[in-house]
Amino acid sequence: MAVTLGELATRLGVALKGPADALVDHLAPVTSAGPGSLTFLGDRRLRRHLVETQAGCVILTAADAEHCPVPALLSNNPYLIFARAARILHPSPSVVGGVHPSAVVDPAARVDPTAWIGPCSVVETGALIGPRVFVGPGCVIGTDVEIGADSRLVARVTLCVGTRVGERALIHPGAVIGREGFGFARDGEQWVRMPQVGRAILGHDVEIGANTTVDRGAIGDTLIGNGVKLDSQIQIGHNVEVGDHTAMAANTGISGSTRIGRNCTIAGAVGMAGHLEIADGVHFTGMAMVTRSVSAPGVYSSGIPAMPSADWRRNVARFRHLDELVRRIKQLETQIDTMKQSNGREVT
Amino acid sequence: MAVTLGELATRLGVALKGPADALVDHLAPVTSAGPGSLTFLGDRRLRRHLVETQAGCVILTAADAEHCPVPALLSNNPYLIFARAARILHPSPSVVGGVHPSAVVDPAARVDPTAWIGPCSVVETGALIGPRVFVGPGCVIGTDVEIGADSRLVARVTLCVGTRVGERALIHPGAVIGREGFGFARDGEQWVRMPQVGRAILGHDVEIGANTTVDRGAIGDTLIGNGVKLDSQIQIGHNVEVGDHTAMAANTGISGSTRIGRNCTIAGAVGMAGHLEIADGVHFTGMAMVTRSVSAPGVYSSGIPAMPSADWRRNVARFRHLDELVRRIKQLETQIDTMKQSNGREVT
Amino acid sequence: MAVTLGELATRLGVALKGPADALVDHLAPVTSAGPGSLTFLGDRRLRRHLVETQAGCVILTAADAEHCPVPALLSNNPYLIFARAARILHPSPSVVGGVHPSAVVDPAARVDPTAWIGPCSVVETGALIGPRVFVGPGCVIGTDVEIGADSRLVARVTLCVGTRVGERALIHPGAVIGREGFGFARDGEQWVRMPQVGRAILGHDVEIGANTTVDRGAIGDTLIGNGVKLDSQIQIGHNVEVGDHTAMAANTGISGSTRIGRNCTIAGAVGMAGHLEIADGVHFTGMAMVTRSVSAPGVYSSGIPAMPSADWRRNVARFRHLDELVRRIKQLETQIDTMKQSNGREVT
Repeated sequence: MAVTLGELATRLGVALKGPADALVDHLAPVTSAGPGSLTFLGDRRLRRHLVETQAGCVILTAADAEHCPVPALLSNNPYLIFARAARILHPSPSVVGGVHPSAVVDPAARVDPTAWIGPCSVVETGALIGPRVFVGPGCVIGTDVEIGADSRLVARVTLCVGTRVGERALIHPGAVIGREGFGFARDGEQWVRMPQVGRAILGHDVEIGANTTVDRGAIGDTLIGNGVKLDSQIQIGHNVEVGDHTAMAANTGISGSTRIGRNCTIAGAVGMAGHLEIADGVHFTGMAMVTRSVSAPGVYSSGIPAMPSADWRRNVARFRHLDELVRRIKQLETQIDTMKQSNGREVT
Repeated sequence: MAVTLGELATRLGVALKGPADALVDHLAPVTSAGPGSLTFLGDRRLRRHLVETQAGCVILTAADAEHCPVPALLSNNPYLIFARAARILHPSPSVVGGVHPSAVVDPAARVDPTAWIGPCSVVETGALIGPRVFVGPGCVIGTDVEIGADSRLVARVTLCVGTRVGERALIHPGAVIGREGFGFARDGEQWVRMPQVGRAILGHDVEIGANTTVDRGAIGDTLIGNGVKLDSQIQIGHNVEVGDHTAMAANTGISGSTRIGRNCTIAGAVGMAGHLEIADGVHFTGMAMVTRSVSAPGVYSSGIPAMPSADWRRNVARFRHLDELVRRIKQLETQIDTMKQSNGREVT
Repeated sequence: MAVTLGELATRLGVALKGPADALVDHLAPVTSAGPGSLTFLGDRRLRRHLVETQAGCVILTAADAEHCPVPALLSNNPYLIFARAARILHPSPSVVGGVHPSAVVDPAARVDPTAWIGPCSVVETGALIGPRVFVGPGCVIGTDVEIGADSRLVARVTLCVGTRVGERALIHPGAVIGREGFGFARDGEQWVRMPQVGRAILGHDVEIGANTTVDRGAIGDTLIGNGVKLDSQIQIGHNVEVGDHTAMAANTGISGSTRIGRNCTIAGAVGMAGHLEIADGVHFTGMAMVTRSVSAPGVYSSGIPAMPSADWRRNVARFRHLDELVRRIKQLETQIDTMKQSNGREVT
């Protein structure tokens, strides 16, 4: 889709330096942008690419604009404006209401006439599908599920019984929301399943990645706040609560009943134990192992970064005896103290 | 579903303190139980909630019952009795036999007339589906698969060629059982796939979580014992054996040919190398990295819990030189020994 | 399928020691091979099983053949020849062209007449399905997807819009290729989705495991090289590049824009940060945490192997103060130096 720079400037509410009728029709990184490209300069280390760029338009700060040989849109936050511009060039496809003949919709489900139910999808009894919702191919919408307006289930999404999805959700293929979680009582050697009778409730503007799984509550609900973004391959246990606008990267797992605050960022492959309380504004780096509650905002980390295996093997062997090592150091300290005192006495 | 306390006491085989005709109709945690709630007191730290509870009935020990202002069911194991009671209030839905018109069942598959094959599910040739099996929407049951009586495939489950599932299984959406595992021979730069001709065999009362994957055997079979419970997002490699009643939490991965004993518990995001032997009754804590066989029951752990990033960075930098550090300590010990001896000589 | 040893020797191009008309009809490990079994001796520690084997035929080195009481095929690389022989005994099923009546194929998709589209699969507009491609049940092939000749999608595979798959791919159930990746710009508390307009492009002879997810590029493409083998439950972020013949085991996650070289092997549950460069021929052991680029081939590791929890707790407590510990050691070294010098002075 081609857009004039004038239209972009108006819709984005930013200043344009250059001709209003010039067109851009695709996105490109600043390192390879050419005629017709819309690009941006976010990382100042890339500024050397600016001097010789032939991009159709660069989004950048007013300061950087001085060095820009082509048309520019000015903003203090070029990446944000680029993201917004990208959504103008690549608008979400509009939804045409209807039910594909191969879909199976229970007569007791209510599907808004402006919503689309794709081929080979199944909508069970009592489900409520809101306006302009897009249910792609191969989805399963369970009994009594509710999906808010303008949500998009790309393909092969499963929403289990009772799940509630807010408005404007984006749910990727293979996601499973509202699965009966992992709860058992022990009876001798046997495990007796504890029925999981709560729900999974997602706020507005939530994104759920491919093959991510969110369990429903055991008693009470699993709560995913507004604006929460979950990447792929994440597991959220029963009765977890995730605060508004918190984002998690792929392969992370959150154990049951842990409560995570607002505006947290959780990098990839983090693991959290159950029943923890994580404050607002906490950031975990990749592969962090979270075994205790965190009450103060800030950045937290764990893990040992990779090193050549020979070095690693030697260091790990020492780690196994770290406690012993500290005892040896204490002994050394005592011995030296004694020697100093006795030397002191000698001196005195 | 509402049940009288008298019926509960009888069916659970426990003593009732209170009126037999009082009703409970839902589950609640002791912290928020109200009229009509069935709850339990497991964790004694919650006992203060007991004094003022308005629950319909509390399951607790005889000792705690003294402080309980409402009807009570008495048991030495309140959580187990609560789980059993919950299954009475929330019975598994009964299965109505039949095949949905949108399902595709090969004429050479044998489906018990009391089993249900849901919409958009596919059952391939030679499959054998036992009595009262529930195959939810969007499942794929491959060639020659066998499923025992009373098993439940919630939705979108894939059972690959030759897989056997015992009785009373519960398999959650997105699970893939019997996938051809990851085996290759190297031919210069190329990888030559080694055909995987074994099967995945699941015992009775097995539970498989959402998006969990179990590979079939390369030669010989992958074996999942009776009563094994696997949470979501788990990967089980080819020829793994998991002993009866072992439970694994989400995001765990078990590499090929590892054998895990009975009654083990494996917490979330544990990784096990291949060809290990893990004894009965072994427990791994979350994110444990298991690189050697374990022959003694007990609890095993690894990993570095998260800490503020600044501290972590400093400590990790030191870890890289831990071996060197131990050498420095040895040198200090030698020096002090020498000094003590020479001091000794001086003294003598 | 039964094959004569003579035919095997000819097709594999190896020498046969024994009767050309003897038959083998199944694979077995050397530890349990019996009449009719084809087996191999790869690991010399298993040589003691050779003396008494009743296998139909053993693939082994000429040196080992001296001790073999049954027919043998001779090769310097028995496992590779065994893999090739296994593919002769278990040939890939041939594909019968056609579209199952329950499949939904858009009229604007082009499906080669020799390709098969299985039951309840969906092929969207503009898709191009090459000769002898097998699309199993429950797959979703998105708009403008291209699949090269002889590729096999086992079941329930999702290929999102624009994805390209080369020839002879093998893609397992639940895999999701070309998902719109995880990219956002921050706008105050809100996350603004950055449209992901690149593609996921897979070379020839690629294998993708069950429930593995590969994101498409943000701008530009995600590139999976020829002969790359990905196990199950892997996540590949947007704009990642994986070099030819690199293999990754299950549960691994690669963050966005990381470039991995050729002929790397990445064990299970490895995590890589984004924007890294990994050289050709790099090997990571299981659960390695990769936070920096690696420029030299070799083996790299990280993580703390599991130990009894009591030991682990003590050692981890010490790790939290490792930096402090090093300072104490430095102080000890200084003190001893001082003492030695002062002793020296005394001596002098």
